[in-house]
Amino acid sequence: MKKYVKCLLLVTVAASAAALAQQAPPKPETLIKWRQSTFQVIAWNNSRVKANLEGQYNKEEVAKSANAIAALSNAGLGALFAPGTEQGKGWHDTSAKPELFKDGKRAAELFGNFNKEANELARLAAVGEPGAVKEQFARLGKTCKACHDDFKAKE
Amino acid sequence: MKKYVKCLLLVTVAASAAALAQQAPPKPETLIKWRQSTFQVIAWNNSRVKANLEGQYNKEEVAKSANAIAALSNAGLGALFAPGTEQGKGWHDTSAKPELFKDGKRAAELFGNFNKEANELARLAAVGEPGAVKEQFARLGKTCKACHDDFKAKE
Repeated sequence: MKKYVKCLLLVTVAASAAALAQQAPPKPETLIKWRQSTFQVIAWNNSRVKANLEGQYNKEEVAKSANAIAALSNAGLGALFAPGTEQGKGWHDTSAKPELFKDGKRAAELFGNFNKEANELARLAAVGEPGAVKEQFARLGKTCKACHDDFKAKE
Repeated sequence: MKKYVKCLLLVTVAASAAALAQQAPPKPETLIKWRQSTFQVIAWNNSRVKANLEGQYNKEEVAKSANAIAALSNAGLGALFAPGTEQGKGWHDTSAKPELFKDGKRAAELFGNFNKEANELARLAAVGEPGAVKEQFARLGKTCKACHDDFKAKE
């Protein structure tokens, strides 16, 4: 019986350790890489919307890119700036200013503004009226700039 | 009159050049950086779905990540492998094998399989039954692996 209990305990401890290992958060450098990647993918899709607005307008392509921007924003940009990632190297040294991590309320507000305008862009892109998309794209751009001004170091 | 036509011609040429410049495709190294970023963002969201399936299941978080994966796939992975990006360095030297660019039909098929399963994952994640999400997540993983096996060089 003692042996059985000991064995059960060992199995339980091992299983808990495995569960903890599975749920371990990503390493800071991995999370920084993912956040740098996220902003690059937003840049890619921004560039596609811009190219459509300045050239031949393809409703479907704009809608797809606007959806991608909105989905990335909805997935939560804030989660990419978890504590412990204030400094470090992903693809390159982080460009996030220390202030971003100190003023969570302001950061949440700026991410929220971006999120609101990104979802409105996706809504308008699905309708497909280039003039309205252009105006909304400019509004979205202002929310990018506001956050960069406060929280992104010059490169 | 001659002067007017000449001037008009010059203006037209200048305007066309400007339009072309605006629509210029991104540089190969920029596109490679964007595609490497896209797959990293997919990896990030995959890791979040996985963590939820292996730990505490948060329906909203899984849905957001599944939506992000689907939206990136819908935006068109194929466009990230444009001609001229067979070789080059984004964040690092491209891992895409030359075969990907030679067999467009097979590449489109593999991206299509991924796209189908990614959208099904987003649909099931919105319903929120972890068992069904887990099965579908495994199906999605197989489409990742199929493409990596054929077209991604070992690192």
